[in-house]
Amino acid sequence: MKQIKIYDTTLRDGTQSEEINLSVQDKVRITRKLDDLGVHYVEGGWPGSNATDKEFFQEIQNYALKNCKVSAFGSTHMNRLTPENDPNLNSLIESGAKAMSIFGKTWDFHATSALNVTLERNIELIRNSIGYLRPHVEELFFDAEHFFDGFKANPEFTINCLKAAYEAGADVLVLCDTNGGSMPEEVVEACKAVLEKIPGCNIGIHAHNDCDLAVANSLAAVQSGAVQIQGTMNGYGERCGNANLCSIIPNLELKLGYETIGQDKLTKLKETSTYITEIANLRPFLRQPFVGQAAFAHKGGIHVSAVLKDSTSYEHIDPLLVGNDRRVLLSDLSGKSNVLYKAKQYGYDLDKNDPAVQTILADIKERETIGFEYSAAEASFELLFFKAMGWSKRYFEFINFFVVDAKRKNDSEPFSEATVIVKVHGQENHTAASGDGPVNALDKALRKALEPFYPSLKEVRLQDFKVRVLSGAVRQAAGTSSNVRLLIESTDGKSQWTTMGVSHNIIEASWQALVDSINYKLFKDDPQKWPSR
Amino acid sequence: MKQIKIYDTTLRDGTQSEEINLSVQDKVRITRKLDDLGVHYVEGGWPGSNATDKEFFQEIQNYALKNCKVSAFGSTHMNRLTPENDPNLNSLIESGAKAMSIFGKTWDFHATSALNVTLERNIELIRNSIGYLRPHVEELFFDAEHFFDGFKANPEFTINCLKAAYEAGADVLVLCDTNGGSMPEEVVEACKAVLEKIPGCNIGIHAHNDCDLAVANSLAAVQSGAVQIQGTMNGYGERCGNANLCSIIPNLELKLGYETIGQDKLTKLKETSTYITEIANLRPFLRQPFVGQAAFAHKGGIHVSAVLKDSTSYEHIDPLLVGNDRRVLLSDLSGKSNVLYKAKQYGYDLDKNDPAVQTILADIKERETIGFEYSAAEASFELLFFKAMGWSKRYFEFINFFVVDAKRKNDSEPFSEATVIVKVHGQENHTAASGDGPVNALDKALRKALEPFYPSLKEVRLQDFKVRVLSGAVRQAAGTSSNVRLLIESTDGKSQWTTMGVSHNIIEASWQALVDSINYKLFKDDPQKWPSR
Repeated sequence: MKQIKIYDTTLRDGTQSEEINLSVQDKVRITRKLDDLGVHYVEGGWPGSNATDKEFFQEIQNYALKNCKVSAFGSTHMNRLTPENDPNLNSLIESGAKAMSIFGKTWDFHATSALNVTLERNIELIRNSIGYLRPHVEELFFDAEHFFDGFKANPEFTINCLKAAYEAGADVLVLCDTNGGSMPEEVVEACKAVLEKIPGCNIGIHAHNDCDLAVANSLAAVQSGAVQIQGTMNGYGERCGNANLCSIIPNLELKLGYETIGQDKLTKLKETSTYITEIANLRPFLRQPFVGQAAFAHKGGIHVSAVLKDSTSYEHIDPLLVGNDRRVLLSDLSGKSNVLYKAKQYGYDLDKNDPAVQTILADIKERETIGFEYSAAEASFELLFFKAMGWSKRYFEFINFFVVDAKRKNDSEPFSEATVIVKVHGQENHTAASGDGPVNALDKALRKALEPFYPSLKEVRLQDFKVRVLSGAVRQAAGTSSNVRLLIESTDGKSQWTTMGVSHNIIEASWQALVDSINYKLFKDDPQKWPSR
Repeated sequence: MKQIKIYDTTLRDGTQSEEINLSVQDKVRITRKLDDLGVHYVEGGWPGSNATDKEFFQEIQNYALKNCKVSAFGSTHMNRLTPENDPNLNSLIESGAKAMSIFGKTWDFHATSALNVTLERNIELIRNSIGYLRPHVEELFFDAEHFFDGFKANPEFTINCLKAAYEAGADVLVLCDTNGGSMPEEVVEACKAVLEKIPGCNIGIHAHNDCDLAVANSLAAVQSGAVQIQGTMNGYGERCGNANLCSIIPNLELKLGYETIGQDKLTKLKETSTYITEIANLRPFLRQPFVGQAAFAHKGGIHVSAVLKDSTSYEHIDPLLVGNDRRVLLSDLSGKSNVLYKAKQYGYDLDKNDPAVQTILADIKERETIGFEYSAAEASFELLFFKAMGWSKRYFEFINFFVVDAKRKNDSEPFSEATVIVKVHGQENHTAASGDGPVNALDKALRKALEPFYPSLKEVRLQDFKVRVLSGAVRQAAGTSSNVRLLIESTDGKSQWTTMGVSHNIIEASWQALVDSINYKLFKDDPQKWPSR
């Protein structure tokens, strides 16, 4: 089976998206996740252009990677410098990256108008830069910027640029559709021309999605002989984004008979996509092919019964192949089977006519109408489930809270303070704490009241919280009185859990999620928790 | 120029998306908007399947449409009935639609397993249904369900199904990639086979996006002889959606030399897309090709200076051709040229060495390190810009705010109250208000203090707010003390603006964004605002 190398540039070209901003540690985390997925190259950034990227290349050397090489990106050397004196090229060498991609102009109009050099000098810049770097790196790629526009305008010049890179030692000539304006048949024609004019070279493809064709163009290039695909996870990138590796990889593996990361690792695709969405702090795209939450969701009644009969009726692949799941929407049946499925996870083999199942379904439906969404907050669901199963233990009783945020003329930020009264074992505790904002103050005051009784709460840390203003059916009013859904992710060092609150008052939503988080921890550690059935 | 007919099924197949739910009036509005855009057919629904769709076909007859025919959708008649007695077929006739699409099984496995009929009977159902409807309608289309799967499994049977429809009078045989699993080369091959085996027939294409190839497949079909394309606006639809007409139409018109709606109407594309997003009450997809808000957005400094020199450098088409706009984003990756571009928009022709430009860049960089991100909040940027240009008018002076959220045992939610002291024209105003949560209370109290002096503030409404917990470089600590960025979208009925606040205290972030929103409104309306240069 023919092997196609996957070159991920989420950390470099992907971050050109206006929505994305990654720290060094974010980049390290994503690199390790992509390494797990089995991509062949992770382009970490442009060490010559900013401090974050430079630091990333140092930091990543502390990690052993199993599958991928980290690649550094940079441009050909500056016209007024020699390669030896070009700080940009030298920072690539200093980066310690085992692979490098150097981009150069290959559109005549760009060489003369953007770089202000003659066409001959442009070719020299390419040749010099590749030649200088060659001995310093294991694998060296040439990114032919605006290749397709260049090839249409002046094919001879464009081919000569590529030839110079090839002769100077570039391992792969990557044809970049920088403006994303090319049609698949243009890609096919150009790939064939390059392979014919530069015998022995390897070509790659770097497509952008401005015509909604980046995936098609990437596949067309592979079918015309390309051996490397550059793209990003979830198609992140400037303007309409880069070619989406989450679509390209399964198409190559499952439809077209090429090997990329291998079908065993392909099952990690959905998980990797979600992980990167989370780190980038973006909203997932519901309809995203293969890995989206709706990719295998069935709504229409006809479809659903057909899918239950035989999934190939309305599914082009088994969702498990890419680590995704079938979802059956809006049907009482599906609701029940979901609850039964969860019950089994928690150790109960319930009958579908069990009254507890009805209670849980009714609870969920009622709460979903005001904006609860349990798929994102399993710990809150688990508490709901056990309550319906008869668990009635109350670890503490809420009496009162009071939160103040006060700011005066010369303060840089408000002073936030909370007081809480809770009753534990019949005893009222009144505590106060200040914090970085009202939620933090409330959290501190509540724990202060509970920790003397439940010392294990000291292990709990809040890792993250997310706030989403609800739109759609559950949105009740516009502006600052909209309903918000708030998720809190907690950890005690052993496990992690997410809880949820919904209210048009953000303090109330936070309070619900905090209370659930603490109750979940106490419930989890409670040896007495299992209600008998 | 070859004419390709656009068949929009947003109102029928598009509403299979889990996110979309349209009323009769919504459907009427969308139909009229699509008529303005110049699509040839608008599929309004399945009158035999539900009351909303039935009502729509009655209601739409009250409107004169300029460009499109309304089309009704339905299935072949039931096995146990004759066409004459089939309520589904008769409801199509009663709908009064001038065009109809009838779908039938064309995959052998589906005919026998889902319909439980013999292959011969399946062909009869198609022939009878098309034949019965033919005299009642101007244009009649046959949607060959699962055509591509059927053609792979049993090409002879599938072609015979199509032949029956053609002979019974179908004007176009629409090849449906119902599961969305086909590759472009399979589409090409199948289109050619149908045109060869059924001389004289017209073919159409109906693609789904499960492989991220619906646009490519639709274009491939046209290039192989298809004359009708079925798709939806914004690619709405079940699972990964239908073929996106917002991408297909401009590709055909601007890239491939076909005529669809015509280039004059093409300039309404972005507006139509946005309108439908609004009616469907969905969040627009930022990176959507051609019509998305980021489709022609430029972030990187190199790109921006090149775009200003010559837009073809980094734009594959002129955004105005599809009614979209170029956007230049402000970010730490950007440089002077972005600021100069914005300055021009605000009426200043600044030199790149102007000290104001340096001040603004330094301001932006400093604020971006703590989490400000001006690309999302242009109004906050505009205030920053004019401050650097020497605008120093202060509409009010902050003295104090105080916010309380209190909840007691039996309250369903906290009571939120704010007090504010501001000085206007030398006079201190102390106001109080309660609200749905602390931010709403603060907003009300602040306006109460200012409206007596600035009555135009009564026009301002907060439309939306967004909260993002910052990760990445700007994230300072985990959990409830993370930095948050808060965006507030305001309107005064004439225009809309977005302002921003950043703090680890959500109250402070909200306050900053509220203050910016009010200052922006007052500044915008202030005839004295322009600082002289």
